[in-house]
Amino acid sequence: MSALELGLPMPVPAPGLPARVRIHEVGARDGLQNEKATVPTEVKAEFIHRLADAGLTTVEATSFVHPKWVPQLADAERLFPLVAELPVALPVLVPNERGLDRALALGATRVAVFASATESFAKANLNRTVDEALAMFEPVVARAKAEGAAQVRGYLSMCFGDPWEGPVPASQVVRVCKALLDMGCDELSLGDTIGVATPGQVSALLTALGEAGVPTEALAVHFHDTYGQALANTLAALQYGVTIVDASAGGLGGCPYAKSATGNLATEDLVWMLHGLGIDTGVDLGRLVATSEWMAGRLGRPSPSRTVRALSHKE
Amino acid sequence: MSALELGLPMPVPAPGLPARVRIHEVGARDGLQNEKATVPTEVKAEFIHRLADAGLTTVEATSFVHPKWVPQLADAERLFPLVAELPVALPVLVPNERGLDRALALGATRVAVFASATESFAKANLNRTVDEALAMFEPVVARAKAEGAAQVRGYLSMCFGDPWEGPVPASQVVRVCKALLDMGCDELSLGDTIGVATPGQVSALLTALGEAGVPTEALAVHFHDTYGQALANTLAALQYGVTIVDASAGGLGGCPYAKSATGNLATEDLVWMLHGLGIDTGVDLGRLVATSEWMAGRLGRPSPSRTVRALSHKE
Repeated sequence: MSALELGLPMPVPAPGLPARVRIHEVGARDGLQNEKATVPTEVKAEFIHRLADAGLTTVEATSFVHPKWVPQLADAERLFPLVAELPVALPVLVPNERGLDRALALGATRVAVFASATESFAKANLNRTVDEALAMFEPVVARAKAEGAAQVRGYLSMCFGDPWEGPVPASQVVRVCKALLDMGCDELSLGDTIGVATPGQVSALLTALGEAGVPTEALAVHFHDTYGQALANTLAALQYGVTIVDASAGGLGGCPYAKSATGNLATEDLVWMLHGLGIDTGVDLGRLVATSEWMAGRLGRPSPSRTVRALSHKE
Repeated sequence: MSALELGLPMPVPAPGLPARVRIHEVGARDGLQNEKATVPTEVKAEFIHRLADAGLTTVEATSFVHPKWVPQLADAERLFPLVAELPVALPVLVPNERGLDRALALGATRVAVFASATESFAKANLNRTVDEALAMFEPVVARAKAEGAAQVRGYLSMCFGDPWEGPVPASQVVRVCKALLDMGCDELSLGDTIGVATPGQVSALLTALGEAGVPTEALAVHFHDTYGQALANTLAALQYGVTIVDASAGGLGGCPYAKSATGNLATEDLVWMLHGLGIDTGVDLGRLVATSEWMAGRLGRPSPSRTVRALSHKE
């Protein structure tokens, strides 16, 4: 049987792209925190087990934000021990020192903080200025490192456009990136939270970060498919040399039928492109699609991932 | 107001891309011929008028294939006169000499033939071998040129993967392309009919065509979004120098909820990327989205275009 009959793309490498990409799977955290339905803890645990079994090596597990803000993930204490023994990286979101305490108490060794490139979103999401938020993260990052965290990731939202402020100047993103690196973050995830970016803007931001001395190997990209641009933007990032890409299994978290669509890039659509480009991810696409179909059944709605739909339709 | 508030992308050019792209709009033909519902002739005419009014300069109008094969477009004789006076290019599909006669009798000046890169699809779609199909098109193209047709386009389907044959060798596509050019086609549209291609394969095919002496300015790309790859593939084609891109308003013709999903690239998603890259198309995105919303209402289902959905959700 040919690859196509097996539901796999045909690998034709393009020059200048990385040989391997690490996918940072965010479905269980970023995905489920944006779903209306609260998913039972055991289903979340099975989801994470299945994602690891499909070959994903980094599976963001949950968030230790106050349950008042994200009730969907209020079960973090119960969930984390159910997945902690998996042989994959299991980063968790920690919004502040209290969240870090909770994560460390459970043995989490990879944590992430969630910063904003714009004042408007820092205010809306964190009720702080950008600098006040950075000041809040400083002791979180320092203590995580002091306690031996294997990695601290800094999310940076609104890196391209902001619904209140419009286009976001690259210089603003560079400043916050450098502050996060200076305080000890190992990895930065550049988020196009509202999905408006296009490939030229991606290249321009990456170039500005490179010129400012930010090492490309510390950068992840986090694109949303709100306007269908996520994969084209990912290609531009790969062409620049980025090797870490965030994605959400089945496109979870971005229900395209709702006004609140956030449109996470579907991991399956990403894997189709990467494997088509001959780029190694370690992911078994068939298993991943089966996982997203299973989760879609639990959520009672079809996956918005085009690859999931195409492969689910196979006889 | 910023561009974003107006529902427009922020233009940030990328080096090495064309300054202008001509969109070959296929919604009224390729789109509607794949819709289950038969759309009234007056609605089709209004659709084409609206597309022209939105700034599209090439609007494929209909097909003069036998009504038995495509009943959705059986009204070609009634439709064409309703749009013929529009100040845009209005190519029509002609499958054979009989179709050409019908098109010429109505004053059509741009025609297209529909070839296949693979034997399996030639057999399935045309009940001929690839060479028998080419032989059938030869007098069509010759007579169209002799009668003063301003342009003859050759569609080429299954240029990347074929559901029966798997990956399609570039040499096979090159051979059919050269045959179509040799018989007088002015423009070739390279179709990824089942949507499986990825950017490396696109670059490889374009390179092979260039090396075989096919002029890039004669090439259009026609990607399907079945696996979500259409825009990334388009970016690869633009980087190679292609300046003609096929797309379907609102993603018409590829209902993503049906097993028969063909997944035409939505013109709006394409325009978002092109305008974001600072590439001129002449299209008014707001008018185009309004047109696709209007047509979605006529078809009784939402547009699968992510950009249409995102902008329709604006208050």
